[in-house]
Amino acid sequence: MTTSREIRLKSRPVGVPTADNFELATVELPTPGPGEVQVRNSWMTVDPYMRGRMNDVKSYAPPFQLGEAMQGGAVGEVIVSNDSAFTVGDAVQSFFGWREAFNAPAAAVQKLETHGLPPQAFLGVAGMPGMTAYVGLLKIAALKDGDVVFVSAAAGAVGQVVCQIAKLKGHTVIASAGGAEKVAYLRELGVDHVIDYKAETDLTGALLRAAPDGIDVYFENVGGAHLEATLTAARPFGRFALCGMISQYNDTDLGAGTRGLIQIVGKQLRLEGFIVSSHYDVLPAFLADMSGWIAQGKVKWRETVEEGVENAPAAFLKLFKGENLGKMLVKLS
Amino acid sequence: MTTSREIRLKSRPVGVPTADNFELATVELPTPGPGEVQVRNSWMTVDPYMRGRMNDVKSYAPPFQLGEAMQGGAVGEVIVSNDSAFTVGDAVQSFFGWREAFNAPAAAVQKLETHGLPPQAFLGVAGMPGMTAYVGLLKIAALKDGDVVFVSAAAGAVGQVVCQIAKLKGHTVIASAGGAEKVAYLRELGVDHVIDYKAETDLTGALLRAAPDGIDVYFENVGGAHLEATLTAARPFGRFALCGMISQYNDTDLGAGTRGLIQIVGKQLRLEGFIVSSHYDVLPAFLADMSGWIAQGKVKWRETVEEGVENAPAAFLKLFKGENLGKMLVKLS
Repeated sequence: MTTSREIRLKSRPVGVPTADNFELATVELPTPGPGEVQVRNSWMTVDPYMRGRMNDVKSYAPPFQLGEAMQGGAVGEVIVSNDSAFTVGDAVQSFFGWREAFNAPAAAVQKLETHGLPPQAFLGVAGMPGMTAYVGLLKIAALKDGDVVFVSAAAGAVGQVVCQIAKLKGHTVIASAGGAEKVAYLRELGVDHVIDYKAETDLTGALLRAAPDGIDVYFENVGGAHLEATLTAARPFGRFALCGMISQYNDTDLGAGTRGLIQIVGKQLRLEGFIVSSHYDVLPAFLADMSGWIAQGKVKWRETVEEGVENAPAAFLKLFKGENLGKMLVKLS
Repeated sequence: MTTSREIRLKSRPVGVPTADNFELATVELPTPGPGEVQVRNSWMTVDPYMRGRMNDVKSYAPPFQLGEAMQGGAVGEVIVSNDSAFTVGDAVQSFFGWREAFNAPAAAVQKLETHGLPPQAFLGVAGMPGMTAYVGLLKIAALKDGDVVFVSAAAGAVGQVVCQIAKLKGHTVIASAGGAEKVAYLRELGVDHVIDYKAETDLTGALLRAAPDGIDVYFENVGGAHLEATLTAARPFGRFALCGMISQYNDTDLGAGTRGLIQIVGKQLRLEGFIVSSHYDVLPAFLADMSGWIAQGKVKWRETVEEGVENAPAAFLKLFKGENLGKMLVKLS
């Protein structure tokens, strides 16, 4: 028997989630059945999109069930295998996050080829967040020569990759983040203009000063005032890849309105929302490009690490306070 | 000497324009010079987009100048020609609207081939508004089989054409307009569900009842509450062709906000603004299709006509009160 601790959704958050919405439980895993494997997770991810799955509404991913362990990306190691496809010690990736260990059919986990990278990179720069940056910038916004790129939440898991892809492709990059540490990190990445939105009373003015000729591509992670400012700063035929709007995730109704949408017409802008899982066709190209860029030192990354599954809810809650630099991860073993 | 009366912009409107913003003036036209023609306009158009040109701001069209005749589409007849390309009696189209007659270089007017249609149709169904419907629906929204289409301001110059193109291509069409006369007209056009937005307290609810499985394509002419309702009623991968937002044209600041934009991300929607003049490549296809549809009785239209250039400002102001059924025109001679 293997003991595993897991985080369950105890109650659905209304507005900003709190520690009370989660509970830690301990389960004993039986010996895995035929065709199953048992995995000990070494790392799990917390991501802003998980807030949506805590609501009981139909969306692109089904809601988390009350009283059950939540789901999310994780990497770990096979500790028991009853399937010929896996041997003990194999590194694997799965969606069985928020728990220390689990049993699952072999088909529900993927062998992880790390190519020399630390396994948790596949929860960040070389995983879903990195591919989100890649898809949003290159496929949705259809980045083209000469574009001036603006990215919000730029020091986060996705944003840090957006900045670097845009820079390595030769673009002027304007990035927004909150606080001196993030600003310093973005300067280190070679971002041309960093806006500390927490220090700005006039985001639109700051953006227009950084991009006097306007913005061609906006990688949107924040929504609200950031989106309003960018509509005003956008150049004709600007493209906005809408990846997320973290400022709105905890709204209990439709939230505050965004003003100035009429500019979408006059400037002939395109705003397009996307979910990375709709673009798996891009995965081979992403892995090839990203492993090359990392090997050449063109893409770096930061992580903010909490330890222990019991601290996973706290790690998740920190995302909404902007307390992560780079990818927020939980180290489990 | 030919006498012409014209409408000049006397002062820039702040908020909703009033009759005081315009003045009627009389000018004597000299004999046209070499290479020039003199044209008597028979019809001119008033369109909502002209409101934007009354502001002194940089946009896709330059602002109207104070104390000068405004511009806009017109059709008329050559009454003097000093250029070999035109003879007296030629039907012509130009942007010298808001006046009864004018002199211009021959290159600034286009000969009008009416193909048996009344000349004013080229200010409506067979002109800019018709082509706007065509471009927005087929190119921007990229209408495809099975799409459920929603159009706002559906009984207007553009909307009436959107409804009919979508119907002749076999789509379920939901249309919004204000008042019994417009509702009756849209039913006559074969629209599947008509929403009288003036009679609805809950536009989102009305839209969800009309389209229980959701909206795939939204042709946006109104903005505000209409856009909010459609974001909620949209199906995944919905496409919004943003043609105009008449509810916002008279705002003196960024206007009221639009709520629920976060749905653009989760539903992976695409919102794209467009101006028909950026899509002249489509003109030959539009003219070929539209003349065929009209000849086959598949596209009909209505006009609301005011008489005399002195009534052009009143005709324009009526657009913002929704007092036009179909295309609003001013008959000049």
